[in-house]
Formats: sequence, structure tokens, C-alpha cells
Amino acid sequence: MTDRRTDDFLIRPDPEDSRLSTAVTGVDHTGQSVDLKVVAERPLTLFLNAQEIVTMMTIGDHPDLLAVGYLLNQGMLSPDDTITGIDVDTDLEVVVVRTERETDYEEKMKKKVRTSGCAQGTVFGDVMESFEDVSLPDEAELRTSWLYRLTHEINTAPSLYLTAGAIHGCVLCEKDRPLVYMEDVGRHNAVDKIAGWMMMNGVSAADKIFYTTGRLTSEMVIKTVLMGIPILVSRSGFTAWGVDLARQAGLTLIGRARGKRFVALSGAERIVFDLDPDSVPDEDRKHRRKGAAAATEAAE
Amino acid sequence: MTDRRTDDFLIRPDPEDSRLSTAVTGVDHTGQSVDLKVVAERPLTLFLNAQEIVTMMTIGDHPDLLAVGYLLNQGMLSPDDTITGIDVDTDLEVVVVRTERETDYEEKMKKKVRTSGCAQGTVFGDVMESFEDVSLPDEAELRTSWLYRLTHEINTAPSLYLTAGAIHGCVLCEKDRPLVYMEDVGRHNAVDKIAGWMMMNGVSAADKIFYTTGRLTSEMVIKTVLMGIPILVSRSGFTAWGVDLARQAGLTLIGRARGKRFVALSGAERIVFDLDPDSVPDEDRKHRRKGAAAATEAAE
Repeated sequence: MTDRRTDDFLIRPDPEDSRLSTAVTGVDHTGQSVDLKVVAERPLTLFLNAQEIVTMMTIGDHPDLLAVGYLLNQGMLSPDDTITGIDVDTDLEVVVVRTERETDYEEKMKKKVRTSGCAQGTVFGDVMESFEDVSLPDEAELRTSWLYRLTHEINTAPSLYLTAGAIHGCVLCEKDRPLVYMEDVGRHNAVDKIAGWMMMNGVSAADKIFYTTGRLTSEMVIKTVLMGIPILVSRSGFTAWGVDLARQAGLTLIGRARGKRFVALSGAERIVFDLDPDSVPDEDRKHRRKGAAAATEAAE
Repeated sequence: MTDRRTDDFLIRPDPEDSRLSTAVTGVDHTGQSVDLKVVAERPLTLFLNAQEIVTMMTIGDHPDLLAVGYLLNQGMLSPDDTITGIDVDTDLEVVVVRTERETDYEEKMKKKVRTSGCAQGTVFGDVMESFEDVSLPDEAELRTSWLYRLTHEINTAPSLYLTAGAIHGCVLCEKDRPLVYMEDVGRHNAVDKIAGWMMMNGVSAADKIFYTTGRLTSEMVIKTVLMGIPILVSRSGFTAWGVDLARQAGLTLIGRARGKRFVALSGAERIVFDLDPDSVPDEDRKHRRKGAAAATEAAE
């Protein structure tokens, strides 16, 4: 497998952006002073029209996409809503999304606390009702040759992880091409930024593949299904309820994808085994940097 | 360094508990059927007296400790409250904590959504006011010989991670001894179970060391400080706001603790360098199982 140029990505992390990480000084195991970079983590307060919705902790890139994606994934925006403006005020750490439609989610926000609170992300309550209505396209496919190329390209792309660690990544892919690679301190933010990008660019979900560095929990499965993406891949492991939900929705769920290895626990009928796994090299140390060592850092 | 017996732990994960993981069948990279175990993830709805507070997703062990710790860490219970009963109904997936004091957190729960919502855990809003009032004990110390023994014992203890992966761990330690090792699908749950254990057993925080498999984010720093524990250690990395908050509170914050290496970005004055790091072996593959490879799984 030869590397394609990382210019293949439409959007990918910019480790050179000085706002996204901070230099700090500490002490190492020998007692000596040491300098390192740590990822930024700053508040961003989101308004939908006149209503304050949430304050998110984020690295701070793509606040417009994060805002739109959050609202979409919470069911507070629908894909056919007309967005009349997005105002970002970096100093005030505020983003305002304005829509043609009048909005009021006071009751919805109360309900969310009562049914699920904040303990496990943000996707419960009435969002589960929408989950049961989603029908994912049967005709989508994942060729193993695509999967091997995708994981290789993602692992070797420049990223904030490689600069500062302690960050999650999500990648929207089409066939063997990674399109949009987002990172953030919270994985839910990385997902939301991709959802925002898809809505703002009118991108179809039906032929896409979603890659995440994190675990395949119920929350991750629910978000992927609600976004309409039929295939979810991770190098990490599964939780039981994540597997149940994926099977219920007909989502192709692939975990532990490292080197030539992977396991599919749902929707394996979409996988086309078109490449002999023995022709795929095991991950060498360099590629493992976003594997073993890297994901250590990304553990939330 | 010779292994002490894992009986040193007062509580540690029970990988043999069949309720905590589920066997599932899938397809591997060669197209062959494969069986594996995945961690359980089930809802638990918490009531404080007559009020429904939250539904948490949890592996399901220690629901009583999780309930008490959650309420404590949310400021809904105070350490001097008298708990008159804790009822767990496993079938209904409900836990009820009863107190002598009458409680009503309707207003508090509304405020939480408005100020921070669910985007980044559960510790914002009025919890930040308490954070500024905490004073951590200066006289606490961390000898590097303790640190090396702790990480070695934790890495080699039996755990659900080793059985099923995709799980977070937190360990309450005293000097060189790991006391209570909790795992859960969400790291916040593992933390809360330890906080619950400390309250139910009247355990002092002032001389304790807290170990986590996850990143040293703002949320993790806030929880540790509010629990009154002066030293926080992780094998993962830092976020910028986590470092800021640790420095503000005078918390000893140690990350990237692997083999002989670590970095302290706050409170290094509590560290006593009593062991030559060159006498500490690098992590071998077996010990790395809860390091590199293990934390890959634990990435949330």
C-alpha cells in the first residue's frame, strides 16, 4: 500500500493552528523541567435564535459546524430547516445559529434532564423515538480493500493527536477516501462537527463510512444511525448495548480494526472481502502511533 | 519489583461476574465466525427520595455506591447527610437513596442544563463555586517508589478490561497500595463509585492518591479536587483547562505515567524522588496490556 497525499482530505486537523494547543512547562520523572504541548479546551456557548441551549467544552476550531451539528444531532434543527445566519464571537465564546423557523426547546431541554441527565452524553429521551424510524440503505457496501486503505491513511495523517495527544478523532469517508477528519476533546464534538459539515454542504449519508478512534458505545451507534450513515468502524472495542442497537438498526458495526484484523458484530452482509488479509502488513510502530499509544491518550 | 498479591485490593473488578459482560458472535477479517465478550451497558435510574434525578448507563456493579457517589459529586448529598436507606431494584433498574434531610433539586437540575447541558459531563454550573472553596492538604506526598509500584499493580490486576475491553478504570490508592479499583463504561461512573465507597466507609481523602486510565480533562480535575484528593495520576495526557484548574487548586497532576516515565504539570512539590528511575523496568508487553493496547479500548 503506497501513501496517497493527505491532500485527499477535504478537511483535516491543522496541528499548526496555535489556538488549538498550548505550551506548558512541567517536571519529568527525573525531576528535570520539561516543555510540552497540551490541547486547548475552552467553553463555547450555543444559542439557537434567542434561546441559550448549551455550553460545550471544545478545542475551538469549526464552531459554526459544531453548532449546527449539535443542534441537528439533538433534533433541534432538521435537515430541511433554512439557516439564515451563524454568528461566531470568539471573544465572548458564543455562537448563535439563526433559522427561518421559530424555535423553542425549553420543554425539550427539561425532558432531557429528567430522562437521562448528563450521565452518558446527549442522545436519550425523545431522540430514541427517531432512532426507531431510521432505515439504513441495504445496498451500501464496505470492501475490505477500502477499509485497509482508510485506516492506513487516517493513522498516518497529520493530527493534533500527534502534536499534543489527549484528543479524539472522527472521520467521514467515501469508499477508500477519508473526506473530513475532525478532532476534539470530546468525541461527541468531533461527531457533531462532521454532522454540521454534512448539512452545510448538502452531503448524502447513504454511501458514507464513519470512522472513530473511540469505543462503539450505544451513544456512538445512535448518533451514526440518526445521521443516516450505514457503516461504523473503530479501532476500539464494543459495548453490549451498542451491539444490540446496531443490530436493531441494521448498522454495519466493525471494531478492533488494527492492521489486517477487525471484527464485525452487526451488518456483516455489507462487507465485501476483496483483499487477502495476508497481503496487509501488520501495523508497524509508526502506524500504531494513532493506535495503541495514540488511543491511550484519547481515552476520555 | 515483585508482585504483591492482588488481595491487597479491598475492592477490585470481578471479571468472573457473568452480569458484567455478554458473549456475542460476529465475523472476523477472514470472514470466519468469531465469539467474543463485550462489556454490559445498562440503564440505572436514580431517585433521591421522591425525585427522579438521572438515568445512567453503567455496567451495573455497585449500584448503591454509584448512586451515593453521583449525588455527592453533584452536590445533592453532603458528606454529613444521614442516609436512611438505599434500595436497589435490579429488575426495574432503579436505585433509590433516602435521606433524613428533605431534598428538592428541581431548580438545580434546570440550572445545570442552562449553564452547561450535557456536552461535557456533569460538573459545571454551581459546582464550580464549590471548587474555588476547596483547600487541598500541602503535607500530602507522592514518593516515586509508590507511584511505580501502584502503576505496576494496577496494570497487572485482573479486570474486566482484560476480559472484554472497552472500559474505563479508576483506582483509589494510599501510599503504595491500591485500595479500591472500579471499572465502568463511563469513567465518571467509576469515579462516582469510588466517591460513594469513601462516603459509605467514612474514608479520609487527605492522604489518598487517585489513579485513572483516562485523560486529565477539566472534568476529571474538578471531580478529584471536590473529592478532596490532593494527587491525581494518569497514564494518559492532559488538556489545557485541566492543567489550569489543577494549578489553581494546588492539585498534584501527573500524566503520561508509563514504565519509568511521567510528567507532572502541577503540584510537583508533593513529589519525593526516592527511587532512581533507571532501576524501573520499561513496561513489557504484558504490562502494556492496560497501557497501549488496553487504553485503546478504553478510549471513550
